[in-house]
Amino acid sequence: MPDIDLHGIFPPITTPFINGRVAHDKLASNIEIWCKTGLKGLVVLGSNGEYVYLSDQEKQEVIETAVSAAPQDMLIIAGTGCESTRATIEMTNACAKRGARLALVVTPHYYGGRMHAAAMIRHFTVVADESAIPILLYNVPKFTHITLAANVVQELSHHPNIVGLKESSGNVNLLGQYLNCVGSDFNLMVGTAGVLFGGLSIGCAGGILALSNVAPQQCIRIYDHVRQGNYEAARQLQLQMLPVNNAVTATYGIPGLKAAMDMLGYFGGDPRLPLLPATEQEQSEIKEILQEAKLL
Amino acid sequence: MPDIDLHGIFPPITTPFINGRVAHDKLASNIEIWCKTGLKGLVVLGSNGEYVYLSDQEKQEVIETAVSAAPQDMLIIAGTGCESTRATIEMTNACAKRGARLALVVTPHYYGGRMHAAAMIRHFTVVADESAIPILLYNVPKFTHITLAANVVQELSHHPNIVGLKESSGNVNLLGQYLNCVGSDFNLMVGTAGVLFGGLSIGCAGGILALSNVAPQQCIRIYDHVRQGNYEAARQLQLQMLPVNNAVTATYGIPGLKAAMDMLGYFGGDPRLPLLPATEQEQSEIKEILQEAKLL
Amino acid sequence: MPDIDLHGIFPPITTPFINGRVAHDKLASNIEIWCKTGLKGLVVLGSNGEYVYLSDQEKQEVIETAVSAAPQDMLIIAGTGCESTRATIEMTNACAKRGARLALVVTPHYYGGRMHAAAMIRHFTVVADESAIPILLYNVPKFTHITLAANVVQELSHHPNIVGLKESSGNVNLLGQYLNCVGSDFNLMVGTAGVLFGGLSIGCAGGILALSNVAPQQCIRIYDHVRQGNYEAARQLQLQMLPVNNAVTATYGIPGLKAAMDMLGYFGGDPRLPLLPATEQEQSEIKEILQEAKLL
Amino acid sequence: MPDIDLHGIFPPITTPFINGRVAHDKLASNIEIWCKTGLKGLVVLGSNGEYVYLSDQEKQEVIETAVSAAPQDMLIIAGTGCESTRATIEMTNACAKRGARLALVVTPHYYGGRMHAAAMIRHFTVVADESAIPILLYNVPKFTHITLAANVVQELSHHPNIVGLKESSGNVNLLGQYLNCVGSDFNLMVGTAGVLFGGLSIGCAGGILALSNVAPQQCIRIYDHVRQGNYEAARQLQLQMLPVNNAVTATYGIPGLKAAMDMLGYFGGDPRLPLLPATEQEQSEIKEILQEAKLL
Repeated sequence: MPDIDLHGIFPPITTPFINGRVAHDKLASNIEIWCKTGLKGLVVLGSNGEYVYLSDQEKQEVIETAVSAAPQDMLIIAGTGCESTRATIEMTNACAKRGARLALVVTPHYYGGRMHAAAMIRHFTVVADESAIPILLYNVPKFTHITLAANVVQELSHHPNIVGLKESSGNVNLLGQYLNCVGSDFNLMVGTAGVLFGGLSIGCAGGILALSNVAPQQCIRIYDHVRQGNYEAARQLQLQMLPVNNAVTATYGIPGLKAAMDMLGYFGGDPRLPLLPATEQEQSEIKEILQEAKLL
Repeated sequence: MPDIDLHGIFPPITTPFINGRVAHDKLASNIEIWCKTGLKGLVVLGSNGEYVYLSDQEKQEVIETAVSAAPQDMLIIAGTGCESTRATIEMTNACAKRGARLALVVTPHYYGGRMHAAAMIRHFTVVADESAIPILLYNVPKFTHITLAANVVQELSHHPNIVGLKESSGNVNLLGQYLNCVGSDFNLMVGTAGVLFGGLSIGCAGGILALSNVAPQQCIRIYDHVRQGNYEAARQLQLQMLPVNNAVTATYGIPGLKAAMDMLGYFGGDPRLPLLPATEQEQSEIKEILQEAKLL
Repeated sequence: MPDIDLHGIFPPITTPFINGRVAHDKLASNIEIWCKTGLKGLVVLGSNGEYVYLSDQEKQEVIETAVSAAPQDMLIIAGTGCESTRATIEMTNACAKRGARLALVVTPHYYGGRMHAAAMIRHFTVVADESAIPILLYNVPKFTHITLAANVVQELSHHPNIVGLKESSGNVNLLGQYLNCVGSDFNLMVGTAGVLFGGLSIGCAGGILALSNVAPQQCIRIYDHVRQGNYEAARQLQLQMLPVNNAVTATYGIPGLKAAMDMLGYFGGDPRLPLLPATEQEQSEIKEILQEAKLL
Repeated sequence: MPDIDLHGIFPPITTPFINGRVAHDKLASNIEIWCKTGLKGLVVLGSNGEYVYLSDQEKQEVIETAVSAAPQDMLIIAGTGCESTRATIEMTNACAKRGARLALVVTPHYYGGRMHAAAMIRHFTVVADESAIPILLYNVPKFTHITLAANVVQELSHHPNIVGLKESSGNVNLLGQYLNCVGSDFNLMVGTAGVLFGGLSIGCAGGILALSNVAPQQCIRIYDHVRQGNYEAARQLQLQMLPVNNAVTATYGIPGLKAAMDMLGYFGGDPRLPLLPATEQEQSEIKEILQEAKLL
């Protein structure tokens, strides 16, 4: 089993566009800022990276830029999941060649009614068998309408090339079920800052959090507080960050996250169509939320 | 505002039946056992009490039995929610006369599409206005397919006769949102043991937990650990109890809970029709789960 | 098997309230109007009758009023479903004594996760065994979040005291599945005017339609057109009625239905709390919809 | 507005694979059989064509094969929808160059929470503006968890390059709402054979039906019966075909459809991973269903 340690905080970074084209310089300059904050690494081409809107070619170029913009010790994780097993393997290996160290592989979901346990186990097993880099499973029912059952995760966790799972539903009961059936070196990652404190307390290794695009230090501080046993401090910061997290995820989505980035010194910019940018009204609501949380 | 302190663990107790009739002696003898465990009080006629299967008359008799079977210092909370506002008030006041100290009032839900914020605020305000005892809101989307929004809870929390809320979806993010908008004397209660540790850590006052029908001491220990700052011990016990909790709630429901009670020295018995008792196969699975968790 | 013929249109009538009390005189005067329209019968205490807001005593009184207000040849169907099997039997037989000729029995649903095929078959079988009048199954997932599977309906359809089913989801594919597995004398009833034409065309016996509270003649005309093979006329009237039907069901619910009744010469009045009456804005939208459909 | 007439039946054809590669010869030989049946045209790269599993290159090759295998008068419709607006335009125009006459464009859906009316209108308007061939909207909530609202369809129906909509949820009420707000030359297509009779009766132009991969003649016969006013014959054939349709869609999905094709003289073959082929047990159930429906 590869020696992969995901203890820490990772932002699933946004992909910046200017006039609909990937803005590689903005990507690099954002990464420069993030890399000064104590983040453990970056997830590139996750859901918040609008991966479904990028061509295969663009995806590889984005990985390349991220790898060269980040210091060596920053772990670069590439979102490489596609609907087909074959395409997932090819994208994973292409990203590995460009320097990605780990692949985040979302559950295929279009034919949801047939994505039962056997199909999931087959898919992830074949992908893990043929991937040059280790695999992180990715459970995100908000987008996929699919949930990986605990017994499926248990079986997959035995594969030497599957090293963890990002759980983005925020269901702490489910996190506990996963923890109960995987080994201690399996990296269970909280996938939403809405339950960062809750997930870390129950035993998760770290977090991959949209919120850490705009509030990396606060996320890291919650992480550190839990590691050091300062639960009361962690609890308070968690509650303070909740409204910001809900704004940049459930309420305003990626357009809101990018708007918040623009307000906080990063380059956010417009998402790709069909995602519409945050309206002026939404921007002003987001600004207020950032101010109340003392990020602005 | 009434001086109500819900810090502690409350089982939403089952209602025992023999040949389809309420078995008051079994109810009393179960209560006798529970009252020796350190529980703070009892919730009678909650969802696990099959309240939807009891007549108005039966409900009042059950409250009466519970009040007389329990010591004075056990807080008796009555589930009194009905679909109509008027019926809810009448049932609340009838239970108050029989000695219930608090009323747990579920969100009305049959006409779900019209149970919007204004309807909820009106319903709970009128109920609280006219109730002889304080009100605990009850959010249980698993059964009602309705979720109380944070801003609705915020507004209702100002009512002097609304003293708390039981949240049974297990959504720790939502618990945080509620906490962010209510005062510190508002009793937010974890409504499922699946997130007991998570809910208490984030700031809930206590728990109303199906699991505490069969594992009261373990639930109390998790509660005590958190209060005393023994987070690691709390975490471990939480994980150990998870499979039992899932068995007596999501997987096998009330029939499973009653079967587990029968195995653990309580009187469980059959639920009322149309709930069917746990099958032999289910019973044997439950037994195994109790054994693995060292409850048996 | 009882000789029950449900070919025709039945309104699931609203229950009128004045100051929160059942207004029996208004109920009788509404019935007088409906009975002049060619309707086959009346469904009393259905979902549109706010049955969940009435006490057992009130329910029986409402049935009594309906039975005496309607001519002998109007078939009076009572909604008698309760969560518990026992209560359903008692209410059914009480309504039978007051003159109801048939009972509409909704699927129990509160403990939805345990309302599997075996529980459904047991519930309806026991109810049908012990009921003095024949039973009509009632599938209404909008309110119950439960759908009766075709094989469950098939098995129940063999019971001599189960004479039909009201299907209110509007799923015409499901109607077809039901038709494929029941005998030709099993009365399958379209439960929403949104698919009245579609349901009758595929082979339903008749309709139990909220819309027929306010547009009985139009519903009857669609029924007659289909019976006489005038499909094009039926189609046109169906499309013309669709906006009205959606207004008095999905969009504005019972408050909207009652508001429309007030505009069309019936007594609608306010629903019971927690249902709030249609707002002025909603009333004006409803008025416009009625005008466009030429009902006003 | 382009003069497009979609009156008739179109199969959304499967894509045959051998050892995971597109089997162009099998594609051509299947098309040869379909083209003798009276079908109006073919939908290539629809959901049943596993379009999400094909690369951009493969998609274009499949269109090319289909165009050359079919006679000139067969209308070839290409599924060209992608998550991003830009990619959808590029794929549409690439398929147009290869001979596709019309593009079926699915609603983007990954970021479902942000795919509100404004985003949908913007997406489809930009796609239609820039497409070399006319556009057919594609509503398929089973896979996308998104439903196009009637007012969105109304607005889009005014675009000169948007000529129709395929509705695959089978909601006949919704079909009626669409019909009420579009012009008579807008081609509303029934997207599931489960409501073929119901959809045609209410006014749809034709059907795009998974079932017509395996039972083209039966689907055409239902279509002809409705056109000729033989509603009773249409109704009977609709009911006879229902079990087959449910088998090759809801119950067994694409693997079941391909298995049925193999039994009926077409080349079905295995789907691409992660879709697993129908198991032996499933195949035997499918066989029985085909036999009962007299297709085998």
